[in-house]
Amino acid sequence: MVRNVCVLGATGMVGQRFIQLLSQVPDFNIVNVAASEKSAGKRYEDAVTWHQTTPIPEEVRDMRIVNTNPDEISDDVDFVFASLPAQLAEPVEAAFAEKYIVASNASVNRMKENIPLVIPEVNPEHLEMMELQKDINGWDGCIVTNPNCSTIALTLTLKPLFDKYTFKRVSVTTMQAVSGAGYNGVPSMGIVDNLIPYIGGEEEKMQSETLHLLGKVNGGLVDRANFPLSASCNRVAVVDGHTESVSIEFEEDITVDDIEKTLSEFRGLPQERNLSFAPKQPVIVRKEEDRPQPRMDRDAGHGMSVSVGRVREDVFDNSFKYTLVGHNTIRGAAGASILNAQLISELYL
Amino acid sequence: MVRNVCVLGATGMVGQRFIQLLSQVPDFNIVNVAASEKSAGKRYEDAVTWHQTTPIPEEVRDMRIVNTNPDEISDDVDFVFASLPAQLAEPVEAAFAEKYIVASNASVNRMKENIPLVIPEVNPEHLEMMELQKDINGWDGCIVTNPNCSTIALTLTLKPLFDKYTFKRVSVTTMQAVSGAGYNGVPSMGIVDNLIPYIGGEEEKMQSETLHLLGKVNGGLVDRANFPLSASCNRVAVVDGHTESVSIEFEEDITVDDIEKTLSEFRGLPQERNLSFAPKQPVIVRKEEDRPQPRMDRDAGHGMSVSVGRVREDVFDNSFKYTLVGHNTIRGAAGASILNAQLISELYL
Amino acid sequence: MVRNVCVLGATGMVGQRFIQLLSQVPDFNIVNVAASEKSAGKRYEDAVTWHQTTPIPEEVRDMRIVNTNPDEISDDVDFVFASLPAQLAEPVEAAFAEKYIVASNASVNRMKENIPLVIPEVNPEHLEMMELQKDINGWDGCIVTNPNCSTIALTLTLKPLFDKYTFKRVSVTTMQAVSGAGYNGVPSMGIVDNLIPYIGGEEEKMQSETLHLLGKVNGGLVDRANFPLSASCNRVAVVDGHTESVSIEFEEDITVDDIEKTLSEFRGLPQERNLSFAPKQPVIVRKEEDRPQPRMDRDAGHGMSVSVGRVREDVFDNSFKYTLVGHNTIRGAAGASILNAQLISELYL
Amino acid sequence: MVRNVCVLGATGMVGQRFIQLLSQVPDFNIVNVAASEKSAGKRYEDAVTWHQTTPIPEEVRDMRIVNTNPDEISDDVDFVFASLPAQLAEPVEAAFAEKYIVASNASVNRMKENIPLVIPEVNPEHLEMMELQKDINGWDGCIVTNPNCSTIALTLTLKPLFDKYTFKRVSVTTMQAVSGAGYNGVPSMGIVDNLIPYIGGEEEKMQSETLHLLGKVNGGLVDRANFPLSASCNRVAVVDGHTESVSIEFEEDITVDDIEKTLSEFRGLPQERNLSFAPKQPVIVRKEEDRPQPRMDRDAGHGMSVSVGRVREDVFDNSFKYTLVGHNTIRGAAGASILNAQLISELYL
Repeated sequence: MVRNVCVLGATGMVGQRFIQLLSQVPDFNIVNVAASEKSAGKRYEDAVTWHQTTPIPEEVRDMRIVNTNPDEISDDVDFVFASLPAQLAEPVEAAFAEKYIVASNASVNRMKENIPLVIPEVNPEHLEMMELQKDINGWDGCIVTNPNCSTIALTLTLKPLFDKYTFKRVSVTTMQAVSGAGYNGVPSMGIVDNLIPYIGGEEEKMQSETLHLLGKVNGGLVDRANFPLSASCNRVAVVDGHTESVSIEFEEDITVDDIEKTLSEFRGLPQERNLSFAPKQPVIVRKEEDRPQPRMDRDAGHGMSVSVGRVREDVFDNSFKYTLVGHNTIRGAAGASILNAQLISELYL
Repeated sequence: MVRNVCVLGATGMVGQRFIQLLSQVPDFNIVNVAASEKSAGKRYEDAVTWHQTTPIPEEVRDMRIVNTNPDEISDDVDFVFASLPAQLAEPVEAAFAEKYIVASNASVNRMKENIPLVIPEVNPEHLEMMELQKDINGWDGCIVTNPNCSTIALTLTLKPLFDKYTFKRVSVTTMQAVSGAGYNGVPSMGIVDNLIPYIGGEEEKMQSETLHLLGKVNGGLVDRANFPLSASCNRVAVVDGHTESVSIEFEEDITVDDIEKTLSEFRGLPQERNLSFAPKQPVIVRKEEDRPQPRMDRDAGHGMSVSVGRVREDVFDNSFKYTLVGHNTIRGAAGASILNAQLISELYL
Repeated sequence: MVRNVCVLGATGMVGQRFIQLLSQVPDFNIVNVAASEKSAGKRYEDAVTWHQTTPIPEEVRDMRIVNTNPDEISDDVDFVFASLPAQLAEPVEAAFAEKYIVASNASVNRMKENIPLVIPEVNPEHLEMMELQKDINGWDGCIVTNPNCSTIALTLTLKPLFDKYTFKRVSVTTMQAVSGAGYNGVPSMGIVDNLIPYIGGEEEKMQSETLHLLGKVNGGLVDRANFPLSASCNRVAVVDGHTESVSIEFEEDITVDDIEKTLSEFRGLPQERNLSFAPKQPVIVRKEEDRPQPRMDRDAGHGMSVSVGRVREDVFDNSFKYTLVGHNTIRGAAGASILNAQLISELYL
Repeated sequence: MVRNVCVLGATGMVGQRFIQLLSQVPDFNIVNVAASEKSAGKRYEDAVTWHQTTPIPEEVRDMRIVNTNPDEISDDVDFVFASLPAQLAEPVEAAFAEKYIVASNASVNRMKENIPLVIPEVNPEHLEMMELQKDINGWDGCIVTNPNCSTIALTLTLKPLFDKYTFKRVSVTTMQAVSGAGYNGVPSMGIVDNLIPYIGGEEEKMQSETLHLLGKVNGGLVDRANFPLSASCNRVAVVDGHTESVSIEFEEDITVDDIEKTLSEFRGLPQERNLSFAPKQPVIVRKEEDRPQPRMDRDAGHGMSVSVGRVREDVFDNSFKYTLVGHNTIRGAAGASILNAQLISELYL
């Protein structure tokens, strides 16, 4: 069934990705695009500095941008996709949630009581918090959030292992693409012949969101998974595609084959339900000694699969290392929200 | 006292660095440059494709290149600086060691019996193996090696901490510059909008050489330091300067201040002896949240200091993380050999 | 009608592009892949280091590679797509041409008597030389070549203007992508924080091939177009997509609008005949002040359109400047040969 | 004689370069650093985000920043080095010029009546306008400007040829470094695997400033040189160093040797007077087929020489092409002002 959707922050980088991706999915129909006052009233094409490599979709090109105000969007909207500046996200998403289901990329609401933080293959059961959220707030709609880009890629690879084995500790060092910071986020002076070993707030987000995603819903709260997880985050000269170097120490005595098999065979609810935006294989295992690489592997599964390679023993007891690559603005942002919406549409509407 | 030196592999990348750096140090005098048969007999300027950003030193420009043969170099040479292709290094360095002190960059001889693997600030006492080496082989000279580029930078930061505290484990993830692979080593197709999460043999070298350097000489062998060390190595779009993200778990309950103070105050024998090629401060601690960065910090201490930043607590017990940057072709290669030679000159000649 | 094809040099960069693109075109059926002796006999997947960002097409993955020998390929092949090393191209292409139509990327045969050098939108009538070529050599097949990558993009924009106006002179300065040199062609040391203002033979090729393409067939020869054309070629840190800064001095007094309209409205025989591999619009005119850009515009028309922007008056009399971007390994190499084959298939088979 | 100087805009990119370079020149003594209100009153080290690769000079580190106000700086200042935002430059430089000699980088004053626009090797005689400027305004000081970065490099190579031969036309296509736009000027999203074929106002500046510099002073005005000059400007993934592809058509029938000799032998007043900041050779001619390259050649002459290579015949009558590289933030900005000040100090103070 086709769902009507609205995109908030429609002229920003993630907003553009929403529009690009939604136009390729037949089960969503963009009926409104909203942006700041400066853009409201203008044709989308006139207001946006389009940074995608495919053209602005025909159906959006001439659409008038509306204000970021629930009263200005169509009543028959099913989902509101939001990628708003941090300071706006909290009040604006709440205002829209009175009436609509808001699929949000903002970090501010990610770990609040009653608000599900979801990766469809990882913790679809967290969506049950939506009802409580509606009831408590007296809303017709609700807010559903997706994690930070680097967390999504990591957690997709941890989930099948976590279900089968016991983690003693996990360490991850990221080499993240510049697109994650928005078009103007990283100056070229900082990234040509250079890298930046710091991304504000990123390590904290990875460390908390991952444990939250692997936790269990307990009323409107989540009992987090209980293992130490350390993240070190770096920005490198890559346009799209986060690379992460991961090490896991297990309780159990397992093998490289066990890990590769577990990751390769992993399928979640989106795969079972055949959601059109879900990749056939959430995690692809590569055997070449020098893969995955961001430019080569970020588009795997149309940007919705995470590629894993170099699975090998680490020097610590029962420890293994691997490298992963995930597309940060597809699987890690806009695509994550879209898949959340598809799952909600399938299960709850 | 001025020492006469010869450079083997003089037209290669590290050979060029040797020539560039040696020409800036008054206590060394280049008397011979050797290269492959193809180049032998030619003027240095005519044979080399010079890839340094300073001009070929005047005194070398017109020098005739000799064959890589001990008989072709001057009798009064004190040090032979060698950066040879892996397959040649073993026999050639041995041939030169019959007569000369060979300061070698090749990995093949690094952990052989009787051959010292040395960073002057870290394990100058390993040089005592030189005598045994001469005796056993009946040579007038000997071979002294320096470690792999990423190992040198790491070990300079581990040494002062290792002397004071007890390591339970160490993990490091590197983001290494392309110059480490030689001029033609990394195709631009692999590194523009990309990174390569694999460097052949590098993880093994870091894991073994570091423990060797922190070990104790026992006759002609070394009793390695005894803690687990895990290395994951990546190649990124940086010309010079390796960045390493390090995590250390200690036995002791220490603080960020303890670590920063220990690193800042670290001085080794080269500093005590005021060797001209030694940096004033082997390890520089930075307090900015986003430093060190390779382009900004690789030239600290004329490329001979390692910069450390982001010293912070890790999530594991008694664990700390930091980021380091070291110049891979100066401190990590040619400069390492030159400082070894200066120390030998000071202590033994 | 579906044509059977063979790809020579199938494991190289352009060979891989041939296989990737051909697998997307229903009117071609890959029946053989040929490569050097080293690869012959192996499964394609085992022999190739695949550098494309889409997976190896299913139908080729398990194909056995044959030797580059006309006797080893299937009799029912219609087209042989060749991208061979310069020194092999001449004898090998001739050998295959005895029996097959060879669509060649090699420069060696481009301007030989009786051999058409063709861009389908520019000079399809040059294909008439095929008959003479067959007759004179007594071959059943023939060789058809496509130009150098930077020439193709330039000439597609010159052709409609050349047909309507008279050129007094043309100057072009290129900023070319690294993929044009093959996977190992440009070391990253040469391109990170750098550019290389030289590409061997490229300026000469652009200067001669362009005039050849705009010339008239005269028996087995071509009377070249007669205006001075100057090319300066540079290599920059871009993966795919050549950018060219063009200036044209006309005899006539025209306007920016005349040029933009002429370029936008340009359609060639491939568009008239609706060839499936032809872009709807060979030249796309952009109005933004900072476009075209290689990463943003190289994929226009699935990589087969050339994007033009910044059309503006130059300071010389009746002179205009513009910037163009064309995909060098699609429109500029493999795609060019494929479109040549489609046109031949349409007109002659 | 040592001159006291003040730097305006001291925390910006060019301001930092001024401080870095001035601290290396014994004939200048920094007595004040000025910046915006936000920084005034702070220690320099605390106010600046230092982006140079050498440390903040000792003598400036602890200096208190003053407001950008002539009343706040020391009376004994001889030169004020200014690199101010465009909208501030006009009133602020005028205010300082009442009392001080202002060496300005701003474009707004470059071609005003009575204000000299000078490259010391090219048109030192334009400095004679200083007197008229003082008289007419009733100032004790005056404003002296230096050209745009890409103009300086170009004009240094045109000057010796222009003095000897007659130009019919000149065309230049630039490939400019990102540092020219300031630290935040070019987002990495625009430059990784990309280039931007547009720099606002740059083509106009090159076209007018070059002719102005080669013109003759006529009272308070300049009779510009009279030949058509066309500039096309592009931004590429290079940190420092502008590359320019130049073509000149001459009236005379000359040779490649004539050009190379004329460029190599060129010396200006700064060389005659042995100014310490002047490069020995303003233009260095290279003979390699692939030089100059920005990373390799930008530091020639401590960043004050322009390197020229690939001098060759062009296809037009009496036409020649070459490639040049000049350091855009040294020779093209801060270093240009410093050399202007040295020349004024030598000739007029």
